[in-house]
Amino acid sequence: MNLLVLGAIAYDSIETVNGRASDVLGGSAAYFSVAASLFAPVSLIAAVGSDFRIESRQMLAERGIDLRGLEQQPGRTLRWHGRYHADMNHRDTLGLQLNVFENYSPQLLPDQRRCGYIFLGNIAPDLQARVLSQVRKPKLVAADTMAYWIENSGPELRKLLSRVDVILLNDEEARMLAGESNLVKAGRSILKMGPETVIVKRGEYGVLKFSRDAIFAAPAYPLEEVIDPTGAGDSFAGAFMGSLAREGRVTEASLRTAIQYGSVVASFVVEKFSLERLLSLTSKDIAARYLAFIELTGSRRRR
Amino acid sequence: MNLLVLGAIAYDSIETVNGRASDVLGGSAAYFSVAASLFAPVSLIAAVGSDFRIESRQMLAERGIDLRGLEQQPGRTLRWHGRYHADMNHRDTLGLQLNVFENYSPQLLPDQRRCGYIFLGNIAPDLQARVLSQVRKPKLVAADTMAYWIENSGPELRKLLSRVDVILLNDEEARMLAGESNLVKAGRSILKMGPETVIVKRGEYGVLKFSRDAIFAAPAYPLEEVIDPTGAGDSFAGAFMGSLAREGRVTEASLRTAIQYGSVVASFVVEKFSLERLLSLTSKDIAARYLAFIELTGSRRRR
Repeated sequence: MNLLVLGAIAYDSIETVNGRASDVLGGSAAYFSVAASLFAPVSLIAAVGSDFRIESRQMLAERGIDLRGLEQQPGRTLRWHGRYHADMNHRDTLGLQLNVFENYSPQLLPDQRRCGYIFLGNIAPDLQARVLSQVRKPKLVAADTMAYWIENSGPELRKLLSRVDVILLNDEEARMLAGESNLVKAGRSILKMGPETVIVKRGEYGVLKFSRDAIFAAPAYPLEEVIDPTGAGDSFAGAFMGSLAREGRVTEASLRTAIQYGSVVASFVVEKFSLERLLSLTSKDIAARYLAFIELTGSRRRR
Repeated sequence: MNLLVLGAIAYDSIETVNGRASDVLGGSAAYFSVAASLFAPVSLIAAVGSDFRIESRQMLAERGIDLRGLEQQPGRTLRWHGRYHADMNHRDTLGLQLNVFENYSPQLLPDQRRCGYIFLGNIAPDLQARVLSQVRKPKLVAADTMAYWIENSGPELRKLLSRVDVILLNDEEARMLAGESNLVKAGRSILKMGPETVIVKRGEYGVLKFSRDAIFAAPAYPLEEVIDPTGAGDSFAGAFMGSLAREGRVTEASLRTAIQYGSVVASFVVEKFSLERLLSLTSKDIAARYLAFIELTGSRRRR
């Protein structure tokens, strides 16, 4: 089934202990849509500025991503500047200019309103809500958010949460949103805000999924080198939603499989800066690491 | 098969955000032997002082633990005083008095020298080595260590590592021992020091097992409340070794099962102060949570 993503398209400047990259393509919707396109057809809803490079558009088009909803507007594309600590689980945002996203209000095309799988990427909750309101009877709605919106748009976010099926956030954000330091209690508390599924991303420690009757834990794929963690969470979300859209049904089993594919794709993304590794990824690469991932967590290992 | 453990028996004073406990029975060998006794017969090798309480000895005896190697000496039992941070993954040692352990040099009995499974608990590497030298053709030798010995007894520890099959340590200690911040590289580097299996304990993030040809990741059982993390690692080790001794063979599969039992038993221990929860634990409790643990990580869930 078709998948729709709303989110940021950005040019990022990134500093890690392994080097730096300037003005590279990024943003939640860029990582998400490229990762998701490995599994299912994707429609992208985002704004870019007059400085958006033709190569960036071409790259997305070559992935088969529907770009009718990629609005080019006067002004500049969103800019993000981040610096990772030596412990790459932490980063500082040194600069964020929303630019064309400040007054962005997208209108979905008739066929996009009928998409079955909707992902509301990390952006202002009222913008997420406006897009959600245009969608007709979706099969699954998932949203991402971050500390900034929890702190500054609490009421809008809580309202949105009552309308989504799946919320994805990291452990710090889950604790902040729930006002609860124990992660299991935080997960259960967020379930009460509306979503049927809460997915807590813990970076190198993997993912916890909470639902009313079960908890699922997936490790992160162990890597010998992490070059740039940017986009790992968004790529996780892209492969997660792509896997669900490809399977076409939402069950405990398909959610678990989707989390495993999300973890696998995220493990590739961090091997290079920006979208570089994601763009060279083949379905064979994914299948091989998926098997390794299952093996990593299996109770009994074949000999 | 029989299991032998060398390690500390202590009276602990513990402070956590949930309360405090003074002069309660603790020490790596106390947690280890009680946890292991749920799976297999255990011989305990340790020293205690003249202040060692008769109830403490009785409790261990009631678990069927062989106490012929529990030497009561003039002087005081080891004392440890620790305080946990609000984030219970971290703690400070406020006081440590080795007392009777300062000049302890145990002699194993003939039948103890023939034990198949040996656990060298966290204590001075030269003491671990002296006990290991008395053992004849063990099936499996595992050792634990900590930052203090890595910093202060590096050469002795490296020598010991070349003689053990399994080393257990936490993530910080693994990084310190390998001099390598990436945990996967650290694990591989420690494998080169001798052990066939490196088990890295990551507290609430679970366990990573490294061997030459495979990595295994197990999550921690998600808990809504942690009252006192003391002894979690030692109880993990106890159930891990107990499970292996019970199964009687060391394979990739039996190691994975042992890690799962270790995680399950450790998840009970932290529910109360000191050994309290461990002492009320039944094999039915363990079986139920073991199933829940498998379910927690299973790829496909039965409906």
